[in-house]
Amino acid sequence: MEKNIRNAISNLIKFTDSEWLEISKDFIEKKIEKGDFLIEEGEYCNYVSFIDEGLLSYYYLVDGKKYIRGFFFDNDFISSYTSFLTNEKSKAYIQALENTSITLIHKDKLSQLYQKNSKFQQLGRMFTEHLFMLVSEKYEDLLLKSPEERYLNLIENRSNVIQNIPQYMIASYLGITPEGLSRIRKRLTSK
Amino acid sequence: MEKNIRNAISNLIKFTDSEWLEISKDFIEKKIEKGDFLIEEGEYCNYVSFIDEGLLSYYYLVDGKKYIRGFFFDNDFISSYTSFLTNEKSKAYIQALENTSITLIHKDKLSQLYQKNSKFQQLGRMFTEHLFMLVSEKYEDLLLKSPEERYLNLIENRSNVIQNIPQYMIASYLGITPEGLSRIRKRLTSK
Repeated sequence: MEKNIRNAISNLIKFTDSEWLEISKDFIEKKIEKGDFLIEEGEYCNYVSFIDEGLLSYYYLVDGKKYIRGFFFDNDFISSYTSFLTNEKSKAYIQALENTSITLIHKDKLSQLYQKNSKFQQLGRMFTEHLFMLVSEKYEDLLLKSPEERYLNLIENRSNVIQNIPQYMIASYLGITPEGLSRIRKRLTSK
Repeated sequence: MEKNIRNAISNLIKFTDSEWLEISKDFIEKKIEKGDFLIEEGEYCNYVSFIDEGLLSYYYLVDGKKYIRGFFFDNDFISSYTSFLTNEKSKAYIQALENTSITLIHKDKLSQLYQKNSKFQQLGRMFTEHLFMLVSEKYEDLLLKSPEERYLNLIENRSNVIQNIPQYMIASYLGITPEGLSRIRKRLTSK
């Protein structure tokens, strides 16, 4: 499992084996059963996580209605990161849609790494740049793309796992009704 | 003018006078006339900017239609930051809606600072965390809030400058028609 997270991080910055040892000694491995939460609204998010295997949904609950911000898959990083950065309560829920294995690091440990040497500080910057670009792209998609285009994006990137997500959740993510999603799928299969 | 940017940065991290001198010697001051662009689609964004005074809109143009992602005011940082980070062409336009004064720093200069000491690396991380939280909040608003709530946010934060933004642009930002915006404004004034 550690191989995957090392690969993901080496896309941002390369570490020597001894530097890697220093980072990875603070990793915690955790399993989340399908349906269980990594974090719930109102809790403090003290960790960033890497998904070794599994599927998580990131959503808000407003007046009993679920608004799905995104789905997160193998090799994605996930965190209620604003809560992590500000020490304020999380506004979002992160829930496992399948049995999921993650690797976490606590904010205090990360903070100690940042202080230790400039290269870990650089990792923090590059990691946040990575998250910035992801959320910025999602925002752009929500602003500019039709539900059909966003659906195509989703199945293009992750067609093999998308079948494990209930249709009503995909519809919520696209901001349309389940009936609207059925119409899109019919239109696409008849092309 | 330099006082304002120093204040904004000291909200992220405090620098000694000599550290500040090292950062600020690479600043460039620039004026953008109303209607002119800081960046256009297809250009490479090589700078991050701080708005000393003025008003800018950040938008996309798709099939001749403007999609306004946001308005930026005095003391805001602004950049087509994904283009800045990736060396890819900007997808967005940034245009002055009033005569605007900005302070810029070039990516090469920033990169040199990052290498110089860990504290500048830390500034880079904290600056990006700041931008992450801003875009994340905007994304959340777009997902969860009604156009009326988003309009109220806009006038609450910046009521003094909002009157300088053409109504059709505010409507575009809210994702509604100018008529829809008129109805919201009527409803709010009759409350």
